[in-house]
Amino acid sequence: MTFVQNLDLAARATETRLAELLAALVSLDGSSRRLTAAMHHALLGGGKRFRPFLVIESAALFGLSEGDAIDTAAALECVHCYSLAHDDLPAMDNDIMRRGRPTVWRAYDEWTAILAGDALLTLAFEILALPTTHADPSVRATLVMELAKASGALGMVGGQSLDLEAEKLSDQAPQSLTSIRHLQSMKTGALIRFACASGPILAQAPDEDRRRLERFGDVMGFAFQISDDLLDVEGTAEEVGKAVAKDAAAGKATLVSLMGLDAARSKLAELEQEAIGLLAPYGSRAATLAEAATFVVNRRS
Amino acid sequence: MTFVQNLDLAARATETRLAELLAALVSLDGSSRRLTAAMHHALLGGGKRFRPFLVIESAALFGLSEGDAIDTAAALECVHCYSLAHDDLPAMDNDIMRRGRPTVWRAYDEWTAILAGDALLTLAFEILALPTTHADPSVRATLVMELAKASGALGMVGGQSLDLEAEKLSDQAPQSLTSIRHLQSMKTGALIRFACASGPILAQAPDEDRRRLERFGDVMGFAFQISDDLLDVEGTAEEVGKAVAKDAAAGKATLVSLMGLDAARSKLAELEQEAIGLLAPYGSRAATLAEAATFVVNRRS
Repeated sequence: MTFVQNLDLAARATETRLAELLAALVSLDGSSRRLTAAMHHALLGGGKRFRPFLVIESAALFGLSEGDAIDTAAALECVHCYSLAHDDLPAMDNDIMRRGRPTVWRAYDEWTAILAGDALLTLAFEILALPTTHADPSVRATLVMELAKASGALGMVGGQSLDLEAEKLSDQAPQSLTSIRHLQSMKTGALIRFACASGPILAQAPDEDRRRLERFGDVMGFAFQISDDLLDVEGTAEEVGKAVAKDAAAGKATLVSLMGLDAARSKLAELEQEAIGLLAPYGSRAATLAEAATFVVNRRS
Repeated sequence: MTFVQNLDLAARATETRLAELLAALVSLDGSSRRLTAAMHHALLGGGKRFRPFLVIESAALFGLSEGDAIDTAAALECVHCYSLAHDDLPAMDNDIMRRGRPTVWRAYDEWTAILAGDALLTLAFEILALPTTHADPSVRATLVMELAKASGALGMVGGQSLDLEAEKLSDQAPQSLTSIRHLQSMKTGALIRFACASGPILAQAPDEDRRRLERFGDVMGFAFQISDDLLDVEGTAEEVGKAVAKDAAAGKATLVSLMGLDAARSKLAELEQEAIGLLAPYGSRAATLAEAATFVVNRRS
């Protein structure tokens, strides 16, 4: 099976589970149909489901099945999709298209997009607290703690705030490579790091494995961001499914604009090798994750 | 000690703990200072802290100390304050004053208010996952589950969505007493119900106690809503600390406009008696909670 087929299988399994969870936990008598429709729009509108894939594959390193990891994967995707619904709002990035479809606020309106995001974030923690996520409540509590840290003021939300401060507030100092690297490690890196750490957490593996997978997640997150910046420079809107060249048009410094294209490409190759090296102890169980590192470096969308 | 003094003591203890938690979990090197300042503004700008008080007093029924309940109280207040920061946004209720101070989006801007709300919601679950919330991780997982349900699409957020649908979408049927009661039990009742249920959850008390306290929470939530509507009709902006008579100006149906003033006042008295009756098994330990029921019925702010 090719890597893309593996990624697609994980995506289908995640979407099936997300639809089940929405039906069981949200779309009940007496709920707001507008809200649940907007949650569906935000959650089930395509996407590579790369973070759920990382959850499933990091769990597979320790012998866990897809079913053992699927609820954690679904919870993480709820957080990712809520963040897109909020980031696309006019007051934030003001995006009207996402994955070739209208963003949530364009399909509904701003208040619905704000509430749908709030409800998806809340749903993520409800899912993690379910006994189906893990039989041991101490593992569930650890997942809640780690996802909250990765998503909150010192993680994703904090990174988005630093990014918008730099973009919107004119009295800010120009961005350096260090400051962009810092904000990106919060804004996009923290969730990818959580995804990779969730496998050893679910498997109750030794701390050494967890540290190793967290480092793998850091490396993947850094590579993901560089390749995202490269797509903004080199991709077409048709391939990427959203507006491109936005950063340059906004005069926004990125990792790639500060490093230069050549240095960015050689950093990517270096990160690919580091990622693959970190997986060495897991032998053939890590084959698909190693392919993921190569995929991130070479992705076109 | 008078009831108001008891309420104030719980408020001060909650605020002290919230400030400690913000310092320990959010305001660290590398965080977004704008975001953390906005979180402080949203969280530490006054308020009666009625929900934290209910957590502390419902725990006291079962012999738990204030310290045993304070983290749960703090987490719940994070959810309440996030919901105010988002509800006040221009796209939602468009409020500029709250507790006599500018709302978060007026003090900062819209994107900062959205992110500060997101970060406070996330922080609530991080707090519940802390070992200081409860030594037993199964209790922490239950608190996460129950707070998520109370806050999400079938709770607070769902109620806010139903409310805004009725207000903003002209093709909606006029609101009936039943539909308003339903949406209010989600929008404001669910968190109050959680507050009252958290005591027996923290104490790992029998199911019968939990059901009794949930019913007490339902009754208190209903009474709270009627008294809130009465304040909107009868209070002054100075007393209440925010705009009043907004509902009537917006032509918005409320429990009080549909029931009439006299029926609303007599319903309040009935709810007060039911609430006090539910506390009978707890004897003198319930004295302060019983006073809370009387307070809600007679509050002027």
